[in-house]
Amino acid sequence: MIEFNNINQEPPYLLFKKKYDEAIDAGQKAIEAISISSYNKEMQEVDSRYVNLKFVNNNEFIFFTNYNSPKSIAFISHNQISALIYWSSINVQIRMKARIQKTSDEYNQEYFKHRSTDKNALAISSNQSSPIPSFDQVIKKYNKIKKDRDLKICPQYWGGFSFSPFEIEFWEGNASRLNKRDFYKLNDNIWHHSILEP
Amino acid sequence: MIEFNNINQEPPYLLFKKKYDEAIDAGQKAIEAISISSYNKEMQEVDSRYVNLKFVNNNEFIFFTNYNSPKSIAFISHNQISALIYWSSINVQIRMKARIQKTSDEYNQEYFKHRSTDKNALAISSNQSSPIPSFDQVIKKYNKIKKDRDLKICPQYWGGFSFSPFEIEFWEGNASRLNKRDFYKLNDNIWHHSILEP
Repeated sequence: MIEFNNINQEPPYLLFKKKYDEAIDAGQKAIEAISISSYNKEMQEVDSRYVNLKFVNNNEFIFFTNYNSPKSIAFISHNQISALIYWSSINVQIRMKARIQKTSDEYNQEYFKHRSTDKNALAISSNQSSPIPSFDQVIKKYNKIKKDRDLKICPQYWGGFSFSPFEIEFWEGNASRLNKRDFYKLNDNIWHHSILEP
Repeated sequence: MIEFNNINQEPPYLLFKKKYDEAIDAGQKAIEAISISSYNKEMQEVDSRYVNLKFVNNNEFIFFTNYNSPKSIAFISHNQISALIYWSSINVQIRMKARIQKTSDEYNQEYFKHRSTDKNALAISSNQSSPIPSFDQVIKKYNKIKKDRDLKICPQYWGGFSFSPFEIEFWEGNASRLNKRDFYKLNDNIWHHSILEP
């Protein structure tokens, strides 16, 4: 599930919420799964991965991760990303381009306090995406942290990223492939709408 | 469905095929849906969209599109892409980085001949991703092409892209979030395996 707070009242946000509600009603699983793609300028490489979208606060989409992970390093090197959602239950794809930035330390601490200690133990213990000799090692490290650490204090290397889209497309699949594509683009703080060819 | 031809015998390809077969057995829908992310060097922008993966021929993954579409322009400007699959039926995510290139005109003509004329009419009629005054216009244009054109001749602006990965990660979700991550990287034509932290 995604938590919505003071959702922005511009058309693409209202449409996002409407499609979300339709997908919930249609029994969509893993509705919070969103693919985030980044560009690492130094490596000159595009990369993608799924994250769990936690909040939409006004015009900001928020998820959490390890700040030393390859994706965080890519976001710092190039702060423009793309986000992609597919809700199969309603056959809707949502595409976004956005700028991304870290959330504040206060925000992260507050959020961390209210998560389960199991999740927090993993956030503290995992040096995300680093090679490790075996999967057993992963489990050992996790169990040690669970015993030894205060699991309500958020480490500096973990927290949120917030992105605000400047383009949002809603793509609705059609059996004939004559797909419907509604495109919104932010120009001088105004959202402009157009229809795209399938 | 994805068609496999002479699948490459290296470990990451065999594992890809194994996971594909498991997902099929688990009733995975839209199994051919794959997210492709690109970087447009001129615009300095990452973008993502789903495409339908059609073939895996040896070590090449192949899909088809309009060669004038924004994604095709991005592939030409920067030939490295990322590809992302999520098969919810088995909770497996597959991440790839790859180099991408066009398939040959002969290959495209041969493939086009065997597609349905409905699909071909759309391939011919759609100036993909261009703004259009209304959705009715899309349908009118499509119906006109269907009547007027030889639907077995592939236009020069339509065809395949083939990508060969140089990194492949298999991520298996676990309820505790102690996810299993198997990572394969091609170095000097040899695939190296490692385990990544969750």
